[in-house]
Amino acid sequence: MELEELMEIVEEAGRLLEEKNYYALKILLQEMEPADIALVMEEFPDKKICILFRVLPKDLASEAFVEMESETQELLLSSFTDSEIKEILDELYIDDTVDIIEEMPANVVRRIIKNSTSEARKTINEILKYPDDSAGSIMTTEYVRLNENITVADALKHIKRTGVDKETIYTCYVTKPDRTLLGFITAKTLLLSDDEQIIGDIMETNMIVAHTDEDKEVVVKEMSKYDLLALPVVDKEGRLVGIVTVDDAIDVMEEEATEDVEKMAGIVPSDKPYLSTSVFEIWKNRIPWLFLLMLSATFTGAIITYFEDKLVASVAGTALIAFIPMLMGTGGNAGGQSSVTIIRGLAVEEIRMGDILSIIFKELRVSLLCSFSLAVVNFGKMMLVDNLLFNNPSITVQVALTVSLTLVLVVIVAKIVGCTLPIIAKRIGFDPAVMASPFITTIIDAVSLLIYFNIASSILGL
Amino acid sequence: MELEELMEIVEEAGRLLEEKNYYALKILLQEMEPADIALVMEEFPDKKICILFRVLPKDLASEAFVEMESETQELLLSSFTDSEIKEILDELYIDDTVDIIEEMPANVVRRIIKNSTSEARKTINEILKYPDDSAGSIMTTEYVRLNENITVADALKHIKRTGVDKETIYTCYVTKPDRTLLGFITAKTLLLSDDEQIIGDIMETNMIVAHTDEDKEVVVKEMSKYDLLALPVVDKEGRLVGIVTVDDAIDVMEEEATEDVEKMAGIVPSDKPYLSTSVFEIWKNRIPWLFLLMLSATFTGAIITYFEDKLVASVAGTALIAFIPMLMGTGGNAGGQSSVTIIRGLAVEEIRMGDILSIIFKELRVSLLCSFSLAVVNFGKMMLVDNLLFNNPSITVQVALTVSLTLVLVVIVAKIVGCTLPIIAKRIGFDPAVMASPFITTIIDAVSLLIYFNIASSILGL
Repeated sequence: MELEELMEIVEEAGRLLEEKNYYALKILLQEMEPADIALVMEEFPDKKICILFRVLPKDLASEAFVEMESETQELLLSSFTDSEIKEILDELYIDDTVDIIEEMPANVVRRIIKNSTSEARKTINEILKYPDDSAGSIMTTEYVRLNENITVADALKHIKRTGVDKETIYTCYVTKPDRTLLGFITAKTLLLSDDEQIIGDIMETNMIVAHTDEDKEVVVKEMSKYDLLALPVVDKEGRLVGIVTVDDAIDVMEEEATEDVEKMAGIVPSDKPYLSTSVFEIWKNRIPWLFLLMLSATFTGAIITYFEDKLVASVAGTALIAFIPMLMGTGGNAGGQSSVTIIRGLAVEEIRMGDILSIIFKELRVSLLCSFSLAVVNFGKMMLVDNLLFNNPSITVQVALTVSLTLVLVVIVAKIVGCTLPIIAKRIGFDPAVMASPFITTIIDAVSLLIYFNIASSILGL
Repeated sequence: MELEELMEIVEEAGRLLEEKNYYALKILLQEMEPADIALVMEEFPDKKICILFRVLPKDLASEAFVEMESETQELLLSSFTDSEIKEILDELYIDDTVDIIEEMPANVVRRIIKNSTSEARKTINEILKYPDDSAGSIMTTEYVRLNENITVADALKHIKRTGVDKETIYTCYVTKPDRTLLGFITAKTLLLSDDEQIIGDIMETNMIVAHTDEDKEVVVKEMSKYDLLALPVVDKEGRLVGIVTVDDAIDVMEEEATEDVEKMAGIVPSDKPYLSTSVFEIWKNRIPWLFLLMLSATFTGAIITYFEDKLVASVAGTALIAFIPMLMGTGGNAGGQSSVTIIRGLAVEEIRMGDILSIIFKELRVSLLCSFSLAVVNFGKMMLVDNLLFNNPSITVQVALTVSLTLVLVVIVAKIVGCTLPIIAKRIGFDPAVMASPFITTIIDAVSLLIYFNIASSILGL
């Protein structure tokens, strides 16, 4: 739904609320998707959110509840009676309940736990025990379990009886009575098979399985690679404890992409949305890299200080200073391009460790093309614009040559460093995403200056 | 499957191939996922790939074929007889066929078209007509269509008869005979409903629909937001022409994330994998931004040239030069952090246009915290390390103060520019992702220098 449409509905809902026309309000809201209802409600002040929520039909209210920001969920839960909390919990899938619990303060958590059925309470506690980034933490325990000896007709009957509360019925899991996973069967196979066929005979035993403590990023990548709608999660004994469904997998993919982008920009990743993160927390996520990079710039400062006297001693040397930002900037950008390409390639598994030599060779050729085109344009620009047009006599052919030659070397070094570091990081077990522009720029900056001043010494004899 | 496991299978397959033990080879391969079979085959030389492919059972061969790199597909297609091509095409979904056609040279395309059924040929030509980034280009035409007057039992029978060739049977679409879309019904609802219920009575009419020419990125975002397994695509007359399934949506999400990351690094996005992109193409994707940013660095050069004489005239002024890289680097990093946070927030729709004022206020507070912590550390470092430890008398309190004060202002400006530009870009219809580090750095560089030299004039009286 477009933003403007949503805003019109917010206005309309506000008017109906004012008129206490709750019937029309209910008609208006119940035609909408739960995610949109959540967006609309969050435009209202706290008190009105509670009224709006009570107008919704019970099942839709729960679905919208799951889609809300945790602040709104907390507000609503605090305003609920115990029996209202019970009603909402009844409608929620366990994995959504767990997600909500993880964001709530202790007093709200206590009320949720108190109003859960004892069975739900046990499951919630189990899921909460899995580490934050594990398959166990994103799984749901509401799946269809089948016995291998029953017929297709029995299985379909079983689904009809129990399916309404399951997060998905499209992949059903076949287990022994002790829940040891034997195989799976899709609803498609069930629907296309004859009624009297035995599940054990037609089930698929060849399957991708995750362990509860496996990294959720790996699990999600497998789901994407093998086009799975759901993936079973087993414990150490091979017993089925839950499944990961594709909608949750997509959320994890988005989170992981955001984390990678944050790391590439020198930010410590956080899984909280920007708008609900406090200023202090944002500072905490950003300052470490700023400190580190600021302090490592001491090297560039030291290099300049070391050569400074020689530079300012001649007109040509002084002219060189003005090109430092351009050289460092171009080096940083060239290196950043390579590193980001490799980091992303590694993340989506387009690039593997075995490709390292062919990558370096490729980047070398790309950098030669890039560096020479940049150097030629730069030489022309310095001679035609700086020297002729702006009539700056200190930009001699030698100065232009020094800058252009440096440019060639800087871009080549930048691209090689940019493509190599992420691969090395991956090999020694670091996160390649950290080897992006900010980090690489700092290295390139120092290298650029050394190259620059050494070439200047040779050509200009400083 | 882990890389090592795959490599073991490659070795084993190589041995069996050598021994011409095709039976064991078939047993080995047919236990694997199609995506893994593709990976294994691509480790072999061209001739052996063709032999391996012929060992596979027909349906598995087609599934593995879809997962291969386009180079390998081209190799296989060229080695096939017409009847072999026909067999493969029979097993493929139309949307996969279209994806393959888009990557093949004209002579291979001609053979594919020649060996398609006339119905498939028509559909292929229609899908090929949709623009590259439209919903039409990623949809499939193999979906289950139901009549609104039939019963659930009839619908299940219809699915049993026709479902095997459909890309998904889990969402069935209800249309008038002229294909005007009326609603949808999930396989879950069908399985949980009574046999004699009428489809028209239980179908869902409230639905998210895409138009053939809608941006595929928007479509995919809606599927993620509303947790959809499939989404119907209609033409201008509201007639159903295809559906987008969640597995294709996930591929588009990954592509879009890669494109965003590339844009943020100053690369013109390409949808080809890095390893199969030619050096010249990579150069073409990277050089425009390098040129633009190099030439825009003319401003920083001009600013330095303008102040140069004043700087080199005094010891304190000369000392300031060494801190230029640190100031510009820190500004660039601080601005990059803000811009990337906002760009990503806009991409995942966590941030909206209406939030602009609260974002600027938040970034202002974050930048105050960041800038003062950086300035304090920098002042301490300059006085304790540069002045005392390295015994550099040119680093006076005034010089340290100039650098630290500049740092405060630069970081504040950087963060405000960094958070504002992506939002402005979005408002005027540009892609916010372009407003990332490389672009912002260039602006910050020039602003930093102006701030630096002006503060230096006041404090040091240059």
